[in-house]
Amino acid sequence: MASFFSRYIPILEWLPAYRKSNLGGDLTAGLTVGVMLIPQGMAYAMIAGLEPIHGLYAVTVPLLLYAIFGSSRQLAVGPVAMVSLLTAAGIASLEPESGEQYLLYALTLAFMVGVLQFGMGLLRLGFVVNFLSHPVISGFTSAAAIIIGLSQFKHLLGIPLPQSEKAQEVVYAIIQQAGDIHLLSLAVGVGAMLILLFSKRIHPYFPAALAAVVFGILLTWLLGLHEDGLRIVGSVPGGLPELSSPTFEVEAWRQLLPIALTISLVGFAESYAVAKAVHRRHKDEYQLDANQELVALGMANFGAAFFQGYPVTGGFSRTAVNDKAGARSNLASLVSATLIVLTLLFLTALFFYLPNAVLAAIVVVAVAGLIDVKEAKILWKRDRSDFFMLLATFVSTLSLGIEVGILTGLVLSLVMVIFRASRPHMAILGRVPGTSTFRNVKRFEGLETNDDLLLVRIDGPIYFANVDYIKAKLDKWVARKGPSLRMIVINMESVPRLDSTGAHAIFDWLSSWRAVGIDVCMSSVKGPVRDVLQRWQLPKAMGEDHFFLDDDTALAAFHDRLDKERSERLQPYTTQVNP
Amino acid sequence: MASFFSRYIPILEWLPAYRKSNLGGDLTAGLTVGVMLIPQGMAYAMIAGLEPIHGLYAVTVPLLLYAIFGSSRQLAVGPVAMVSLLTAAGIASLEPESGEQYLLYALTLAFMVGVLQFGMGLLRLGFVVNFLSHPVISGFTSAAAIIIGLSQFKHLLGIPLPQSEKAQEVVYAIIQQAGDIHLLSLAVGVGAMLILLFSKRIHPYFPAALAAVVFGILLTWLLGLHEDGLRIVGSVPGGLPELSSPTFEVEAWRQLLPIALTISLVGFAESYAVAKAVHRRHKDEYQLDANQELVALGMANFGAAFFQGYPVTGGFSRTAVNDKAGARSNLASLVSATLIVLTLLFLTALFFYLPNAVLAAIVVVAVAGLIDVKEAKILWKRDRSDFFMLLATFVSTLSLGIEVGILTGLVLSLVMVIFRASRPHMAILGRVPGTSTFRNVKRFEGLETNDDLLLVRIDGPIYFANVDYIKAKLDKWVARKGPSLRMIVINMESVPRLDSTGAHAIFDWLSSWRAVGIDVCMSSVKGPVRDVLQRWQLPKAMGEDHFFLDDDTALAAFHDRLDKERSERLQPYTTQVNP
Repeated sequence: MASFFSRYIPILEWLPAYRKSNLGGDLTAGLTVGVMLIPQGMAYAMIAGLEPIHGLYAVTVPLLLYAIFGSSRQLAVGPVAMVSLLTAAGIASLEPESGEQYLLYALTLAFMVGVLQFGMGLLRLGFVVNFLSHPVISGFTSAAAIIIGLSQFKHLLGIPLPQSEKAQEVVYAIIQQAGDIHLLSLAVGVGAMLILLFSKRIHPYFPAALAAVVFGILLTWLLGLHEDGLRIVGSVPGGLPELSSPTFEVEAWRQLLPIALTISLVGFAESYAVAKAVHRRHKDEYQLDANQELVALGMANFGAAFFQGYPVTGGFSRTAVNDKAGARSNLASLVSATLIVLTLLFLTALFFYLPNAVLAAIVVVAVAGLIDVKEAKILWKRDRSDFFMLLATFVSTLSLGIEVGILTGLVLSLVMVIFRASRPHMAILGRVPGTSTFRNVKRFEGLETNDDLLLVRIDGPIYFANVDYIKAKLDKWVARKGPSLRMIVINMESVPRLDSTGAHAIFDWLSSWRAVGIDVCMSSVKGPVRDVLQRWQLPKAMGEDHFFLDDDTALAAFHDRLDKERSERLQPYTTQVNP
Repeated sequence: MASFFSRYIPILEWLPAYRKSNLGGDLTAGLTVGVMLIPQGMAYAMIAGLEPIHGLYAVTVPLLLYAIFGSSRQLAVGPVAMVSLLTAAGIASLEPESGEQYLLYALTLAFMVGVLQFGMGLLRLGFVVNFLSHPVISGFTSAAAIIIGLSQFKHLLGIPLPQSEKAQEVVYAIIQQAGDIHLLSLAVGVGAMLILLFSKRIHPYFPAALAAVVFGILLTWLLGLHEDGLRIVGSVPGGLPELSSPTFEVEAWRQLLPIALTISLVGFAESYAVAKAVHRRHKDEYQLDANQELVALGMANFGAAFFQGYPVTGGFSRTAVNDKAGARSNLASLVSATLIVLTLLFLTALFFYLPNAVLAAIVVVAVAGLIDVKEAKILWKRDRSDFFMLLATFVSTLSLGIEVGILTGLVLSLVMVIFRASRPHMAILGRVPGTSTFRNVKRFEGLETNDDLLLVRIDGPIYFANVDYIKAKLDKWVARKGPSLRMIVINMESVPRLDSTGAHAIFDWLSSWRAVGIDVCMSSVKGPVRDVLQRWQLPKAMGEDHFFLDDDTALAAFHDRLDKERSERLQPYTTQVNP
């Protein structure tokens, strides 16, 4: 059993128990991911509108902190495309005056994301990711991938393009400037893409991005392409990141808050999704904990804020490679971070001739794989309403921007929850002839029903969001039965819950039906609902003898009573309501 | 059956078929309500920060329009306390420079409310009122009543008080100025309150407010109290309202939009609640239609915007009086409007000596009846979580203002829907010994369960908001069963729905359990869910023979199979997953 400390600081659990047999896998995986991280980090920093070096800084201390606090043992943390784009969008709206101010805002954003994620983890709010439904995530990711890809076309085509999250604006600008395309940049970019696409065929772990980077550097250096207008990274400062600090200006915080919230949620959703996918293969080795993941990502973002990084989260392809290359613990992440530190100390000079177009090609190829047409096709065939949810999220993200898009998706999902919650499935039941089984008359042929009795089943909780819908539907059915109706039996077997609005409503239903000579019984009431009914003293109002274990006994009791009434010529069968 | 036109213009249904026998009731009710409307309209206009005369204008054309379009035949439309307060709060935030501008904003607000309500009616959005739960409405109404009452203390106490929606600010100002209270105003106000409270004992329809008004006017006129600092209404312009127009400035609209939305929703919720309550007694006479009500209230607000009124809606006490005094059609409203028109033409001079303190007393007594302590007490006993929802809405409305309060209530309600939707009730089932009946092992003693089989029931839809919760709970139960577990049977009888995220999740569950040698079956799948499973080809993945009509047959099939396996020494009982 985990101790208190090792529960909140998972490294205390795995490091003391570290087995030598895992070392090979962790080393291989750490080096593989580290080699991936160098070009990816630089490329993603460019998406974020920062100098490439900050992408490398972002995979030093943050990785170390995640390795200490993370509950996943394969998750590879660092800059990712989506979060980088959100960072750029958020800072652009603040119109920073200089490069220093831009960086300051990026650090602030990382700090705020750290506070939000850390706080959500402490408050155990990890469950919020559930509210991004599968179709919404799919539509959002595809659209974001396109926007991110488009953001790199300025490097690929060598033309100035607006820093816009709206696809149509970028496409329009490209069309307008089609004549000015810098063909050399395009050629280098396409060359890099070809290397990326074909080198995968050599071996799945072939360091394709690194190969493309080496190709670009060598080509530029040998042919002096930068003298023909090819943009290059230029001098990259060597050495470790110096300590930095975010700003604590209230106004900047207020303006960055919406984007910080978005990054916190989207970043966590992406990270947790991949952590969960990988965890499936390591179920028996460790527990994955959504809230601990929030805490760990929060810590990683604090690290980014104070060591010249920018917001980070768990990356998709990176984590998959880490896992497949044999990572069994976060030691792999420590190895990756060490490799980056060594690069920063000794190798930055090598990046001088690296063309921007090569980094752009790395981004474009990476995000192209995120465009998910298959899911859309499947949903079109199997779940039309989820298809339209995907489409709406996709279109609004693509045309109105990332933030509006994710919000549209979230609101659509919630409206769906609420809309569906307000319209529970309901059925009129009839007897399967000769049995004590009752089924939905719409789904089964030849069921027996009575004119003087309406047997209905409500499939869902009875609560404020649906009481009106239920009553209206019941009234419709009551009206259809006509004046011979004497009794409504409500089968409560699939009513899991009843709130105070629901309890009030049942009193109302009772008095409104009894006023027209129709009595009400209940059958198969579930335990939790039975308790609520008791607290509201509904059995007293309805009559204690109006509750039955199943439909069969309810019907039998009703017909017995009718027979008795007829023979004794008693008062009609109603009881008083005590509201 | 109603024709197309009479469906959308209900007056075309009831007026041609008007029966003379209803005339007496309609006349009596119309006059009674009209007499109520004169002081109420003036008093509520004062809450809204307008000259009292606009309260009278608001019950001329709007009443006429509601009578034409309204689907209720008893609803009495006009200014109400809550909407008046919201109007004042909304306009105050725009800091109007003059009385004319204040009025212009009030007209604009009425116009915007008209557009919103009319539009919501056309879009059939009447169902949105369902999302204000009973406890939220109760807490909100009580707090709003207190705020409205406090807003009148400046007239009752004759001291200047801040136009604030935050109770603590007003109370603080009263305490600070306790020494400056104008005792004459207080005495007149208390006198009016006593008349209001005691005259109800004479007869339930005694025109108490009118009596208080007459008392105030006579007293002031005879004793010349206005010369001792008693504030009076002063000269009221006679004649009908002239045509007015709202402003169409974009900036004003943008700023008024949140409050216009709030008024539209709160106004409609209040109006529809009373219309529904009264309709219960007239079920056989006409149909009440939420969307038509929105259209009619929208029209009434257009009338207010163009004839110098301000936002109106159906009033609670007024409608109750209208119904009890015998109104059988909207002719009663036409009678009330006629009475107001006559007053405007010939009687406005009489109001010169009317003390503001009397109008304030009318408001205070009216809203005191809205403070609902009983519901809070009941909920404390019967539904603790709904009690806290009421309390949170009450406290936030009282201390943070009307808008924040209603928003808090709405958000709380929605969070509740979503939170509950994300945690469906689930149960492990066991066999009632010697029967084919299965029940929740937590609720019943002595049920039979097996070590090699887990039978569970999920009570609710399986969809994006709850798949993680369901899986985590199932995994916990699977872990508790230990290594002897061979089969999970999911009883789907109370699963009414399955979305694409749910379908994807079931594939995941399947492969994760089969990977550890546990197979999965389903029993009692409902029709709509069966269709979805088919579309996703889940039966193919699980095995067509893994679906059973009930738990009993599922268990029997499992044990048959186990026996066969043992005797034939076959492969373990698993099938392939085709994702």
